[in-house]
Amino acid sequence: MKVSMKSCWFWIGLIILACSGLRAGEVRQEVQFPNLPGYVTLACDLHMHTVFSDGVVWPTVRVNEGWRQGLDLISLSDHIEHLPHKKDMKIKLNRSFELASASAADHGLLIARGAEITRDTPPGHFNAIFTSDNEKLNVPDFVEAVKQANEQGAFVFWNHQGWKGSEKGKWLDVHTKIYENKWLHGMEVCNGDSYFPDAHRWCLEKNLTMLGNSDIHEPDLRQKSEPANHRTMTLVFSKERTLPAMKEALLQGRTAVWWKEQVIGKKEYLEPLFKESVHLLGEPVWREKAVWLQFENRSNVDLQLKKTAGDGPAEIKLPAISTSLVKIEATPEMKSLNLQYTVANFIIEPEKGLPVAFEVNKKTATAKTAENTEP
Amino acid sequence: MKVSMKSCWFWIGLIILACSGLRAGEVRQEVQFPNLPGYVTLACDLHMHTVFSDGVVWPTVRVNEGWRQGLDLISLSDHIEHLPHKKDMKIKLNRSFELASASAADHGLLIARGAEITRDTPPGHFNAIFTSDNEKLNVPDFVEAVKQANEQGAFVFWNHQGWKGSEKGKWLDVHTKIYENKWLHGMEVCNGDSYFPDAHRWCLEKNLTMLGNSDIHEPDLRQKSEPANHRTMTLVFSKERTLPAMKEALLQGRTAVWWKEQVIGKKEYLEPLFKESVHLLGEPVWREKAVWLQFENRSNVDLQLKKTAGDGPAEIKLPAISTSLVKIEATPEMKSLNLQYTVANFIIEPEKGLPVAFEVNKKTATAKTAENTEP
Amino acid sequence: MKVSMKSCWFWIGLIILACSGLRAGEVRQEVQFPNLPGYVTLACDLHMHTVFSDGVVWPTVRVNEGWRQGLDLISLSDHIEHLPHKKDMKIKLNRSFELASASAADHGLLIARGAEITRDTPPGHFNAIFTSDNEKLNVPDFVEAVKQANEQGAFVFWNHQGWKGSEKGKWLDVHTKIYENKWLHGMEVCNGDSYFPDAHRWCLEKNLTMLGNSDIHEPDLRQKSEPANHRTMTLVFSKERTLPAMKEALLQGRTAVWWKEQVIGKKEYLEPLFKESVHLLGEPVWREKAVWLQFENRSNVDLQLKKTAGDGPAEIKLPAISTSLVKIEATPEMKSLNLQYTVANFIIEPEKGLPVAFEVNKKTATAKTAENTEP
Amino acid sequence: MKVSMKSCWFWIGLIILACSGLRAGEVRQEVQFPNLPGYVTLACDLHMHTVFSDGVVWPTVRVNEGWRQGLDLISLSDHIEHLPHKKDMKIKLNRSFELASASAADHGLLIARGAEITRDTPPGHFNAIFTSDNEKLNVPDFVEAVKQANEQGAFVFWNHQGWKGSEKGKWLDVHTKIYENKWLHGMEVCNGDSYFPDAHRWCLEKNLTMLGNSDIHEPDLRQKSEPANHRTMTLVFSKERTLPAMKEALLQGRTAVWWKEQVIGKKEYLEPLFKESVHLLGEPVWREKAVWLQFENRSNVDLQLKKTAGDGPAEIKLPAISTSLVKIEATPEMKSLNLQYTVANFIIEPEKGLPVAFEVNKKTATAKTAENTEP
Repeated sequence: MKVSMKSCWFWIGLIILACSGLRAGEVRQEVQFPNLPGYVTLACDLHMHTVFSDGVVWPTVRVNEGWRQGLDLISLSDHIEHLPHKKDMKIKLNRSFELASASAADHGLLIARGAEITRDTPPGHFNAIFTSDNEKLNVPDFVEAVKQANEQGAFVFWNHQGWKGSEKGKWLDVHTKIYENKWLHGMEVCNGDSYFPDAHRWCLEKNLTMLGNSDIHEPDLRQKSEPANHRTMTLVFSKERTLPAMKEALLQGRTAVWWKEQVIGKKEYLEPLFKESVHLLGEPVWREKAVWLQFENRSNVDLQLKKTAGDGPAEIKLPAISTSLVKIEATPEMKSLNLQYTVANFIIEPEKGLPVAFEVNKKTATAKTAENTEP
Repeated sequence: MKVSMKSCWFWIGLIILACSGLRAGEVRQEVQFPNLPGYVTLACDLHMHTVFSDGVVWPTVRVNEGWRQGLDLISLSDHIEHLPHKKDMKIKLNRSFELASASAADHGLLIARGAEITRDTPPGHFNAIFTSDNEKLNVPDFVEAVKQANEQGAFVFWNHQGWKGSEKGKWLDVHTKIYENKWLHGMEVCNGDSYFPDAHRWCLEKNLTMLGNSDIHEPDLRQKSEPANHRTMTLVFSKERTLPAMKEALLQGRTAVWWKEQVIGKKEYLEPLFKESVHLLGEPVWREKAVWLQFENRSNVDLQLKKTAGDGPAEIKLPAISTSLVKIEATPEMKSLNLQYTVANFIIEPEKGLPVAFEVNKKTATAKTAENTEP
Repeated sequence: MKVSMKSCWFWIGLIILACSGLRAGEVRQEVQFPNLPGYVTLACDLHMHTVFSDGVVWPTVRVNEGWRQGLDLISLSDHIEHLPHKKDMKIKLNRSFELASASAADHGLLIARGAEITRDTPPGHFNAIFTSDNEKLNVPDFVEAVKQANEQGAFVFWNHQGWKGSEKGKWLDVHTKIYENKWLHGMEVCNGDSYFPDAHRWCLEKNLTMLGNSDIHEPDLRQKSEPANHRTMTLVFSKERTLPAMKEALLQGRTAVWWKEQVIGKKEYLEPLFKESVHLLGEPVWREKAVWLQFENRSNVDLQLKKTAGDGPAEIKLPAISTSLVKIEATPEMKSLNLQYTVANFIIEPEKGLPVAFEVNKKTATAKTAENTEP
Repeated sequence: MKVSMKSCWFWIGLIILACSGLRAGEVRQEVQFPNLPGYVTLACDLHMHTVFSDGVVWPTVRVNEGWRQGLDLISLSDHIEHLPHKKDMKIKLNRSFELASASAADHGLLIARGAEITRDTPPGHFNAIFTSDNEKLNVPDFVEAVKQANEQGAFVFWNHQGWKGSEKGKWLDVHTKIYENKWLHGMEVCNGDSYFPDAHRWCLEKNLTMLGNSDIHEPDLRQKSEPANHRTMTLVFSKERTLPAMKEALLQGRTAVWWKEQVIGKKEYLEPLFKESVHLLGEPVWREKAVWLQFENRSNVDLQLKKTAGDGPAEIKLPAISTSLVKIEATPEMKSLNLQYTVANFIIEPEKGLPVAFEVNKKTATAKTAENTEP
C-alpha cells in the first residue's frame, strides 16, 4: 500500500471518526488486600451523602464511584434531620436508596439502606446501616431513634467522635445507655482525613467495631484506589460477599480501617493480614558480606517496617503490589538471619505498630509474626 | 536532639495529626494558550447539565469543575423540556443559574444564564446563552422559543448537529428561517467526543461561530486540562475578561474549538495562535551535517507538523508547554534552511491543517506563517 | 501532647532528618500475563547494548532496568564488530556478560551470554544468545560466525529485518543457507518501535520463532511495564523459570511479542492466552432491554474487541488489569447472548486479529474461542 | 467515505506503520522559578559521575538528563582518585568533559569542566568546577590539589559535609587553611537526599556559597523536574546565561538550594524569590463572613504557609504553578485583612522559615514581605 506522507494523517482522522461514537465503558480496579484464612477481604464505605441531604451528587453517582474504586458494599447515609436542599427537592428519607438500588444491581455492587441520625453534639451523629425504613427513625428523641434502628436490625455506629462543640467527643451517660442496651455496635476511628485516637481506644476497650468511612459530600474524583490516594474505607473480613455475611462480620467486629497510609485494626486481624500480604520470594542469595532477599507485598499499602532487634537495615520499605529487593548486611560465618521489625503503619493500638519477625537460613526462608519482639 | 529509631515514627504521626484538620484548598490550573494581538484567549464551556434537568450534580459542582480546569466562562444549559428528575425536584428553569451564581462570584468565574431548547429532531437541540429569563423560552413553538431567546439578547447555537433520528443533521427550512432572521449565531462543531464535519463546513460557509462544548451530565473527574485529557471547550478571543466582551466575541465568531488533540477554527485565528504558540529559542547550532533547532511550544496542544516541502524531517512533534530539540539534516555548504510544514492538528477546514513555514539562516532564525506552501 | 502550631513543622523536619539516610530499595513490578496450561508465561528482552559496544550504560544498569520492569531473562547482545568506544575502553567480547552476572544473580534475574553478529546489509544483523564464548564468533566470514554460534548451542535470530540499505530485508541465498542448516531459529518481528510484516509472515511460513526486543542503547527510563509505555519484549511460554527451559521454549517457538498496544503470535498461543486473560465475572444481570456483563482482563494489554456477528456493541474495550462493565442490548424474550468478536490487538497473522466468542444465557456464562467466526 | 467496521482498525494500523519510523525528539521542560530583579534564575547541578569514575553512564547521558529536566549548567565531577572501572577503561581525567562538550553545545546546555578531589575523611571530598586541566589536580597533597584548582580559577566547595568516618563533618585546621586562603568558596548544604545543618550554618556564618547537587551515579529516570520528584539542584541568580556570569554568581554566593520540598537560601534572595513567585490575583471577594482570595504560585514548589499572627487560616497551601482559592474568615465590619505567615519551606536559617505578610483591603490587595512578623 502506498500512502503519501501528506495525506495519511487526515485518513487516520477520518477512520477514527468513522469507528468512534463509542463511549468508554465503566472500569473497575479492585482494592487489593489478600483474603484471610476463612474470610474474604471486602471493602466498604458506610457514610456518604447525596443531594437528598447535604451532598451534591445524585444517588447513582455514589454507585459509579464505589464500583470503579473497587468497593464491595456502600450505604448512602443521608441525614434525617439536616436537609438544606429541601427548598428545591421533595425529600423522602428512603429515596436515595431506592434510586441507587437498580444501578447497584447492574454493577454487582452491594448496597445497604442507611441513614445518619444527626443530633446536636452531644450526643453527636450516628449512622444506622441495614435499616428497613428510614422514615421511622425520624422521631424527636435521640435514644428512641437509635432504638428504632435497632428494632429494624440495623448496625449502628458513632460517627466522627471528637468533632465539634464544647462537649465534643466525650463519652456521656447517653452513650453508656445505648452501649449497655447493645444498640451501639461501632465507632468511626477514621472519617475522611481525620483520625480519632479516643474512638480507637474505646473500640479496643469496649469491643466496638472499628470503622473508617469517607463521609463524602462532593463528587469523588478518584478513578481507582491507590496507596497514596484512596478514600477512607473499612476492610471487612466476611464469610462471603453477601449483605447478610457483611452485616454479620460488622456486628462481630471483623474489620480494619484503611486510612491514608495506614491500616488500623485489632492485632488478631492485622497479624494474618500481614502474613497473607508479605512473602519472601525465591531463594535468598548469600554473599560474603550480604544476603539479598526479595519481599513481595500483595497489599495496597506501602508498608513501612522499623527495626526493633536482630539483623537488617533500620528501615525497610515495601511498596504496594510489588517486590522489593532488600540487602541484609551479613558476615561470612553467619548461618541464619533474624529480622525483627515493627510494621509502623499497621496500627494495633494508638501509637503502636504490629511486631513481625522473619527467620532466614541458608536453605529456607520462613516468615512468621513476632510474639516476643514487642518493644 | 536524640530521637530513638523506634519511637520517632509515632511522633511524626502524632505531630501530623496535631497539625492537620485542614482541608486542601481549591486549586486551579490555567488552560494554556497564548493571547492573540489585541485579544485575550479565554476558555469557555457553554453546554452542561445539572440535577435541574438530566444531569447528576448540583449546580455548584459545575463551578468547581470549571474553575479548577482553568475555564473563564461557563453556562449551565439545563433542558427546558426534558426533566427526568421532576418527580423528586421542584424544578424552576432559572434555578440552577441562581444556585451557581454566588459560588461563581467567589471563584472569579464568569457564568452566563442559559438553557437548552430541546425539541425533537428535526429541528434538533439549541442552546440559548446570555438569557435573562429561561421561563419565557418554555413555549410550544420552537421558532417562537428561539425568537424569545433573541429578544432577551441571547447567543443561540445549534447543538450536536448530526445527532439522532432519520432527519438528523439536515439543514431544513426551519434552520433557514432562524438563520435568515439572524436568530442563529453558531453551531457546535464538537460536542463531547464527537466531531461534526457538516457543522464545521456550514460554519465556514455561513459565517457561523464555531463552538466546542462538553455537554457533560456526569461529574467531571479531571483535576486540570491536560493535552491528552481535557474537556471539549471553546477558546474565545475576547477584548477583555467580562461577560459583555465574551458575548461580543462569540457573536463576532472569534473562537476556536479545542477538541481532543486538535484545535479547529478559522485560519485568521489559528494562524496568529500558532505564531504566538511556537518560537525558535536561542541560536541554531550549525554542524557539518546537521543544524540543531529548539522549538518552544507555549500551547496546551501536542503539535504535529508534517513536512510539505523544503528541509527538515518528515514529521516534527512539539509536545505541549515544552521545548523540543529538532535535528535538521544539512550539508556543509548550506547557508539557510527553509522548513515548510502543515500543522496537522490545527484544522482550518475539514481535513485541512494550517500551513506554516520557518526560515533559518546562519545568523538569525525567523518564523512566519506560510502563504504559498499549501498542498 | 501540646504542640504549638508555630513549631511543629520544624520538629517534623528534624525528625524526618533523624529517621532518614535510607535509600529507597529497588522495586520490581511484574509484567502481568497469565500462565498457559502447562507453561509459565515469562518475559524476556534478548537485544540490548552497553558501553562495551555502542550503548551508553554500564552492564549492571541493564540488570536494574530489566528486573524492575518485570523481565525474567535478558541478554546483553553487544556488537562484535561495531565498537565506537574502543578509544576509551579495553573491550573484551565476554566482558559485559561477566560484569552483569553477579548483579543478575543478586536480583534473581536470568541472564544469557549473547552477542550481535553485525555485518553489512545483506545479510544484516543477527543475535546469538546462549553462547559460551563470544570471542570465537569474531571471525571474518558471516556464515562461519553463525556456524560457530550454533556449535556453542546458541539460539540465533535475524534482527530488525527490513532495515537499511538497498538490499535491506530481502531473503537471499545466504539466509536460505543458514536456515536450511538449522542455524537460524527466529526473527525479530518487532524491534523497538518498528514492526516488520515480512518477518512476521516468514516466521509463520518457515516456522521460525517470533521475537520482540528493545535494542536499547540509552538508559531505559521506565519504572515499570505499563500498557501504554513498556519496552518491546518477547513473552515465552516456558516449562519453568530456568535458563535451559527458556532456551527450549525459544527453540520450540513458544513465544509471543508484546509490542506497543499489541500482542503478536501464533494462534495456538494467543488463543489460550486470551482465554486465561479474559473472564466473565459473577452473574449477568438481565434487564428488560439490556444485559449487564462484567469482563475481567488479567493481562497487561488494553484489549480492543471488534464485533463480527451476533449480539453486543460494535466495539468492546477491556482495559488492562481491571474489570469492565459492558451493556448488551437485548429484548425481553431473549434467552441467551452470542457475542462474536475479533481481538483487534491480538494479531495472529499480518492484519488479522484473533476471533473469539462468548455465549451467555440466563443461568450461566461461558467463554470460548471462536472457531467459525473468522471474517 | 464508507469504511466497514471490520476492516478499519487494520487500516489504521497499516497507516500508522506507514507514517511512523520517527523517533520522538528530545523534549525539555523548564525548572520554573521566576527571575529576581536584575538577575535571571538559572538551575545547575555541579556534582555528578560517569563511567569515567564510579558512575554507570556515558558522559553524554548526563547532558540529555540535565537538558530535559530544565537545567542550565552542569559539571561532570568525576573523581580524580577513585577509579573502580580502570580495569576496563583507559581513563584520562579530562575525558568525560571532552566527550560531553559537543552534545552540550547541540543542546544549548552550559557545561563546566570539573572534578572531585576525593581524599579520606578528613578532610573529605571537594569539587573544583571551572577547571582548565583536571590532570594537574592529581597531586599527592590535598591542600596542593585545592591550590592547583584555584590557580586554574576554579570554584571550590566542600561536598556532603557530615558524611562518613569518625572525624566526619568536623571543621579542622585544614579547612581553616583553605578557607583563609580564599580557596574554599562554598559547601553542599544538600547532597542527593541528605541535608547538612552544620554546612547550612557555616555557609551563613562564613559567607560561603550554598550548594545543592545530585551526586548522581545511576541514570536519572526523571523526565522533568516536578515539585515532588526532582533532583537536588542549585538555583543561581545570574546576570546572564553564560559560563562567566554563572561563575561570578557562584563566587558571589547568589544561590539557593532546591531540595525535596524546600528552598534553602539567604533571606536576601528568598525574600524577592517569594515576592516574584506569589501574587494575589484579581479582586478579593468580600462576603459578610468571609473574604475570598486567589493566590497564584509561579514557582515549582508547593508552598506551605503557617500563620504567625493576624487574619487567615492556620495553614495555607499553595501548590506549584497554580492558583489557590483561599477563604479568610471575616466579620461584616472588617475593612482590611492582615495576614502574617511563615513560609515553612523557604528556609532562611536552620529550622527557620521566611516570614511574609499580606495586606488586603476592600479596594486593593498588596503583598509585601514581613519585616516585623518574625516569631
